[in-house]
Amino acid sequence: MSKRHRRTGASMMMRRYTQRAAPGTKPGTIHIPADALPPVIRITCYDSERIEHYQDCKVELIQKLLGKHAVTWIDIVGLGDAEIVQRVGESLGLHPLAMADVVNVPQRSKVEHYRDHVFLVTQLPRLSQSSHVEQISIFAGKDFVLSWRERPSDCFDTVRARIEETGPVIRQSSSDYLLYALLDTVIDTYFPTLEDIGDRLDLLDDEVSQGAASDLVVRVHGVRHDVRLLRRIVWPLREAVEMLSKNHEWFISKETSIYLRDCHDHTVQIIDTLENYREACAELRDLYATEISNRLNEVMKVLTIIATIFIPLSFIAGVYGMNFDPEVSDLNMPELKWHWGYPITLGLMLLVAVVQLMFFRWKGWLGKTTRKQEKT
Amino acid sequence: MSKRHRRTGASMMMRRYTQRAAPGTKPGTIHIPADALPPVIRITCYDSERIEHYQDCKVELIQKLLGKHAVTWIDIVGLGDAEIVQRVGESLGLHPLAMADVVNVPQRSKVEHYRDHVFLVTQLPRLSQSSHVEQISIFAGKDFVLSWRERPSDCFDTVRARIEETGPVIRQSSSDYLLYALLDTVIDTYFPTLEDIGDRLDLLDDEVSQGAASDLVVRVHGVRHDVRLLRRIVWPLREAVEMLSKNHEWFISKETSIYLRDCHDHTVQIIDTLENYREACAELRDLYATEISNRLNEVMKVLTIIATIFIPLSFIAGVYGMNFDPEVSDLNMPELKWHWGYPITLGLMLLVAVVQLMFFRWKGWLGKTTRKQEKT
Amino acid sequence: MSKRHRRTGASMMMRRYTQRAAPGTKPGTIHIPADALPPVIRITCYDSERIEHYQDCKVELIQKLLGKHAVTWIDIVGLGDAEIVQRVGESLGLHPLAMADVVNVPQRSKVEHYRDHVFLVTQLPRLSQSSHVEQISIFAGKDFVLSWRERPSDCFDTVRARIEETGPVIRQSSSDYLLYALLDTVIDTYFPTLEDIGDRLDLLDDEVSQGAASDLVVRVHGVRHDVRLLRRIVWPLREAVEMLSKNHEWFISKETSIYLRDCHDHTVQIIDTLENYREACAELRDLYATEISNRLNEVMKVLTIIATIFIPLSFIAGVYGMNFDPEVSDLNMPELKWHWGYPITLGLMLLVAVVQLMFFRWKGWLGKTTRKQEKT
Amino acid sequence: MSKRHRRTGASMMMRRYTQRAAPGTKPGTIHIPADALPPVIRITCYDSERIEHYQDCKVELIQKLLGKHAVTWIDIVGLGDAEIVQRVGESLGLHPLAMADVVNVPQRSKVEHYRDHVFLVTQLPRLSQSSHVEQISIFAGKDFVLSWRERPSDCFDTVRARIEETGPVIRQSSSDYLLYALLDTVIDTYFPTLEDIGDRLDLLDDEVSQGAASDLVVRVHGVRHDVRLLRRIVWPLREAVEMLSKNHEWFISKETSIYLRDCHDHTVQIIDTLENYREACAELRDLYATEISNRLNEVMKVLTIIATIFIPLSFIAGVYGMNFDPEVSDLNMPELKWHWGYPITLGLMLLVAVVQLMFFRWKGWLGKTTRKQEKT
Amino acid sequence: MSKRHRRTGASMMMRRYTQRAAPGTKPGTIHIPADALPPVIRITCYDSERIEHYQDCKVELIQKLLGKHAVTWIDIVGLGDAEIVQRVGESLGLHPLAMADVVNVPQRSKVEHYRDHVFLVTQLPRLSQSSHVEQISIFAGKDFVLSWRERPSDCFDTVRARIEETGPVIRQSSSDYLLYALLDTVIDTYFPTLEDIGDRLDLLDDEVSQGAASDLVVRVHGVRHDVRLLRRIVWPLREAVEMLSKNHEWFISKETSIYLRDCHDHTVQIIDTLENYREACAELRDLYATEISNRLNEVMKVLTIIATIFIPLSFIAGVYGMNFDPEVSDLNMPELKWHWGYPITLGLMLLVAVVQLMFFRWKGWLGKTTRKQEKT
Repeated sequence: MSKRHRRTGASMMMRRYTQRAAPGTKPGTIHIPADALPPVIRITCYDSERIEHYQDCKVELIQKLLGKHAVTWIDIVGLGDAEIVQRVGESLGLHPLAMADVVNVPQRSKVEHYRDHVFLVTQLPRLSQSSHVEQISIFAGKDFVLSWRERPSDCFDTVRARIEETGPVIRQSSSDYLLYALLDTVIDTYFPTLEDIGDRLDLLDDEVSQGAASDLVVRVHGVRHDVRLLRRIVWPLREAVEMLSKNHEWFISKETSIYLRDCHDHTVQIIDTLENYREACAELRDLYATEISNRLNEVMKVLTIIATIFIPLSFIAGVYGMNFDPEVSDLNMPELKWHWGYPITLGLMLLVAVVQLMFFRWKGWLGKTTRKQEKT
Repeated sequence: MSKRHRRTGASMMMRRYTQRAAPGTKPGTIHIPADALPPVIRITCYDSERIEHYQDCKVELIQKLLGKHAVTWIDIVGLGDAEIVQRVGESLGLHPLAMADVVNVPQRSKVEHYRDHVFLVTQLPRLSQSSHVEQISIFAGKDFVLSWRERPSDCFDTVRARIEETGPVIRQSSSDYLLYALLDTVIDTYFPTLEDIGDRLDLLDDEVSQGAASDLVVRVHGVRHDVRLLRRIVWPLREAVEMLSKNHEWFISKETSIYLRDCHDHTVQIIDTLENYREACAELRDLYATEISNRLNEVMKVLTIIATIFIPLSFIAGVYGMNFDPEVSDLNMPELKWHWGYPITLGLMLLVAVVQLMFFRWKGWLGKTTRKQEKT
Repeated sequence: MSKRHRRTGASMMMRRYTQRAAPGTKPGTIHIPADALPPVIRITCYDSERIEHYQDCKVELIQKLLGKHAVTWIDIVGLGDAEIVQRVGESLGLHPLAMADVVNVPQRSKVEHYRDHVFLVTQLPRLSQSSHVEQISIFAGKDFVLSWRERPSDCFDTVRARIEETGPVIRQSSSDYLLYALLDTVIDTYFPTLEDIGDRLDLLDDEVSQGAASDLVVRVHGVRHDVRLLRRIVWPLREAVEMLSKNHEWFISKETSIYLRDCHDHTVQIIDTLENYREACAELRDLYATEISNRLNEVMKVLTIIATIFIPLSFIAGVYGMNFDPEVSDLNMPELKWHWGYPITLGLMLLVAVVQLMFFRWKGWLGKTTRKQEKT
Repeated sequence: MSKRHRRTGASMMMRRYTQRAAPGTKPGTIHIPADALPPVIRITCYDSERIEHYQDCKVELIQKLLGKHAVTWIDIVGLGDAEIVQRVGESLGLHPLAMADVVNVPQRSKVEHYRDHVFLVTQLPRLSQSSHVEQISIFAGKDFVLSWRERPSDCFDTVRARIEETGPVIRQSSSDYLLYALLDTVIDTYFPTLEDIGDRLDLLDDEVSQGAASDLVVRVHGVRHDVRLLRRIVWPLREAVEMLSKNHEWFISKETSIYLRDCHDHTVQIIDTLENYREACAELRDLYATEISNRLNEVMKVLTIIATIFIPLSFIAGVYGMNFDPEVSDLNMPELKWHWGYPITLGLMLLVAVVQLMFFRWKGWLGKTTRKQEKT
Repeated sequence: MSKRHRRTGASMMMRRYTQRAAPGTKPGTIHIPADALPPVIRITCYDSERIEHYQDCKVELIQKLLGKHAVTWIDIVGLGDAEIVQRVGESLGLHPLAMADVVNVPQRSKVEHYRDHVFLVTQLPRLSQSSHVEQISIFAGKDFVLSWRERPSDCFDTVRARIEETGPVIRQSSSDYLLYALLDTVIDTYFPTLEDIGDRLDLLDDEVSQGAASDLVVRVHGVRHDVRLLRRIVWPLREAVEMLSKNHEWFISKETSIYLRDCHDHTVQIIDTLENYREACAELRDLYATEISNRLNEVMKVLTIIATIFIPLSFIAGVYGMNFDPEVSDLNMPELKWHWGYPITLGLMLLVAVVQLMFFRWKGWLGKTTRKQEKT
């Protein structure tokens, strides 16, 4: 159990919305995050006939390649150079406020329409680290798509592979379809993360049923945090995708719009699943709380029953421990002088204990009220 | 009580929304589920005069029959063959994304309008197994209806019987009415399931009143899960049906639209009932928790009262068990030497016990505070 | 307390939404409920000059009278004859789906606009039996109104009396005003039921304040159920009335529309009151739970205090019950041999008890923490 | 603490929405409430030049004065005469349904537009009696304003004084500005009531912090009731004012509309404050519940610790109270015969007690877990 | 821990919405708050070529400078002079109701459109005092911007510095851009406050994990209050900014509108963060409550176990403390005369204690149920 998991909501956010610049600073200023990697630029140009790849390009190449093919896809990884950010923005004619959003991580998922380009920003879960996300910004104009990620990952390799193959629809289509393809890939990345969370919930569920989990509260907290984190990303993403798919004025073709509707359905499914997980977390907590409280109550009850059984016995012993003098009066505890006095007293004690036990059993106080009968 | 019922929400979902394909895969790819049955095709063509049935057809037959009758109903059961799925889609001119949804179970209930056909997908509860659902996809075009189910069942037999009879409106109508008839059948299938859940709730209710149920928490969980499962299906279905009934541009005739409004009313009734069941579940849980806590409190109270009654008695016995020497001083427990000492002491003890009991009764602490008076 | 009241939500619904027909049956089929009464038809025809009453009419009479007066009001009680239902529907040209809703009780409150008639269905609370409702369906066309109730009651007698009098506006108006008059009567029927529930809540409130109610949880459950039942009827009714009052295209005159707005205000008031009752129920439950828990805690505290006071006393008695031999050593409990030994010991015990009591009183543990001070 | 405060929500409503007339009665019938005062009519006519006052007028005067000045303000107090109500309504041409609402107290706040007049009804809190409200109805036509209150109060005196002064805008304006002035006065009346509730909450807050309040639950209930009462009045009032300010078709001038927007802002502020009070009530209750439960737990813990300390001591005393005969065997409690036996035993007991106390202190069980450390 | 933090919601509001004037007072009256500072006026006029600063100006200067430059920015600090407020309003032609809102602190955040100026009012958090806010009102007309703050602060110094520099866009733009710049600065001021709250939550989170915080409830209350305070400011601010950015009819240029959309995004981020903090507060409270209750239960359990172990031992001691006379009968506790009687009895006691301990350990009642296992 890592230290991180012990923390509750606020600190688990990991990345708070911040304004790095002091209040009043000129809008659109580029503030590079402290741990940002140096940007690596990779360009893929294609139309239905040709396809060209350029790795580790310089910014100048963008300008040169732009407009020579149907689609120029600039894929940049790493935010660590303010100058490059600025120059890329200028070569493609992107709005400074949008460029500031690219580096000012994390942004809330959103789509923004500018005069001649569309800007989409969202967060991408990193596979197998369910509570780590990285920001991805996608710009799309008439003949280019610019995707900008924080850290290297292979998530766009399948898209690049699909462009390679001559068959698919992607090569015949314009840049709006590439935008869709990237967005679809981003959204699909959530499904393994959901699976992972689902598996963790199943595991916790089993542990609660077996009554063994003791750090469950903290682990459910962990899951709940991840669910909340994803929810806060996917809710606005859903809105953004809907806005994109409905607003096909100048950029999104009718055909691509149908594909975007499919993307939208996927975000709805993700949200549905997350809502379900959230309810499941709440139920797990309730169930666990009930379990704990039942167990403690059980302990207290058994202990109290033990005490209650012995109390009358001790009283009887106490009575015969009184020092009344049997010799002064034959009313003074003559039992003490009887031949069978002691055995009878012990028998009386046994009887009292047995009667009490039977009474408690008749009342149904002895069985483990909740758990035992459950198992039958 | 099956193992399954012991699980909470997340794992009880049984079927999570998943993307079988890796992120970035080409959209519209057909991924057959592992346990899918091989498809069996059955075709019914009819117009107001003729009716023809074809069982276990090949895919080629579809193309041949299409357009020869007013309505061609292709009813397929089983998803287990990617090639057939693709070829059926192609013969009817269906959109690849929709075909992918047919096999990618489970889908969220939805209606999608394509250029020349309507696609509706939802889940169908399997009778007598309230938490099992199967996916059903219905495509409807101008002169055909395609229904595709996961598993064989007799749920559409009544519709087929109604087509057989020459009288009904169904033979005179176009494919939109058949779409309605199938949808109506699907929605009606929910009512027995609702009845079943209602009966389970009534039973649980009785058991709580009689104070006997001990695995109730888990069984209420089971019911709640089923309610939640159905809710998550029927909510989007309601929207889909509303969309369908309001959007009668080119496909749904005015008359069929009135019938669809009736369908819509039924989904609203289902949702109403489910909301009611949900509240009833919550109340049952509350009631049960109160019951359990009252019972435990009762036990603790009685035990504490027993202890409290004996404590002063034991004290008295303790006092007369002190070894002060009555012979040294006539102030040292002269009672020990009295003729009536012992009986008086016992009487004193009895008196103390009775006084305590009367005090407790006067305070109203002896009756079972909640349950006993309830029954009067 | 009737058995019925012991049940929680699900079973208290009394009447679930059901589809009596098997899934797939032809829509619009008339299914008579098992306990339905045979229909009794009563017709009142009037215009500003004439008024005619016909009791226990046959269905044929409807056709004959229709169109001869400004308004023909057919008032039917009892649903028990499928043929009559069908023939009445046919004589007035009503839609089969609406006729099916008339007998398929209970329906959710709704208004439906057909080509030449309006169909309104809702539930009517039966006076003095707050949790019994009966269904009432009203059809209104250009020159007729058809009201169809489940059971005989006098709720429309005042309307009939108002028609009798020559003065009122009702005789000069067309069928839309009669529709309003009937709807207004139906809505007004809720107010005595609300009064009744309010009185029950007041009574419960008093009992909680006096701390006497013990079956309160169950009775609050009963009230809550009734409130929920009414809520589920009146919410959709409000929508239906609003829809009716706003949609005065061809049927509702401007003047009647103002009256319908008044109806709408009444439904809003009913809903407001029901929301208020709902909150009051929740508060009563909370208050009662607090009360119960406080009382139990009080008991436990008093008992524990009694025990705590005696424990040190018993200890002292135990010490002097030890058998150290004072004769062996003068350190061995010389008190036993003292002249004032026993009285001093008793005094010591008294002192310990008094000191403890004073300590507890100083700590404020002796007063009934919550209730006693409350009364001052 | 008055009896009234002990009641919960339902009964505290004081005034339920009721229909005094039997169901089915003719709409617009005037039903005078039982405790209504006889109406007193006061008329103020003014235009920019003249101003005339008439006190204790007869109804006939209204007709005479109407139309002779720019604005005729009829201010009536008291609802106790059905005939006067009817005749006033007729002289001004008001709708019978609106007149029925004037006397049928309480009405939900609302604005209604009739052909040539506007009808506004709301509740007015009575100063210094925060849970008493009275109904106020305002009608405004082209050249008249009719305000009708239940009981005499001085709340409109400031408006009358403002009319007296020649300077203000009110004399130059038409009747819509007078309507605004009255409405503004009504809304401003809520602020002292809010202040009063705020003060009560502050007081309760202080008492909870000092741990002294014991009837707090009931008093918080009282505040909560008042908040809820006001909320239920102001919410629909806000809507009504918004509707009025936005709907300046024929009656509200553009300039007055700006003033009404200000009124609307005030209602929003009132609602904001009430929402805040509601949350504060909930927090106070939680805090108090925590306080009570902590205190009780503290008591139980201390008592249990006392008992636990003495139990081993009593056991030791019990051991040496056993009657084993030291003379039979030198293994039989030789301690009894030792010279230091008794002191050693007492020492042993002391040691056990001290060890226990130290253990408990080390465990941190002795300090008042929550409250003491809080104060540091 | 300051006294302030001990208070709950209602009193923590610090500033309630109030109407200082008596109900019925003429609207638009200027009521100066008691503690207001005297106003200090500072004017900055600029266009793309010139820039002029005037400090500590008189009101008359406004009139003189107005219209001579592209933008005249009047920045006033302090509300303490009714005459100056009135004269400033008159020189700029501002609406009296808006001027009244400037001094009537606090106002709910809002934007109001007047004929030739826009009025925006909101609250500004004071840095490093997270629960203190001050009101800021901004008026913007065609060629002027008036900002009016309650107290001196340096929050607009960066804007003034940006105007100084000749480069930036601000000098070329019209007054709408200055309005944006000020608003952006105001909104950015929230981020450090959010950071501060986030840090406090992290601290509390750590303390809860370490189980040490005892005044946590009160401190969480404090944070929650601040969150609620900010929420109540930022929610309406978000609406206001949205309204401003969407409503660019005559005043906001298309370009500035894009910048305002950025502002709007920031308010959404602030709200998002605040919602997150709110949830985190709730979770912290839950976690703390669980912690406290677990700890207390632990104590009670250990104490009860101690008692339970000793009770049978005391009983055994009690038995051998009975005074049955072994000499009368050899059945009367012959053990007392045995050579090994006492050691055997002690052994028996030890055995009973050990058996009990083992039983409890086997049952798992001895470990700290929740916390210890957590750490492993």
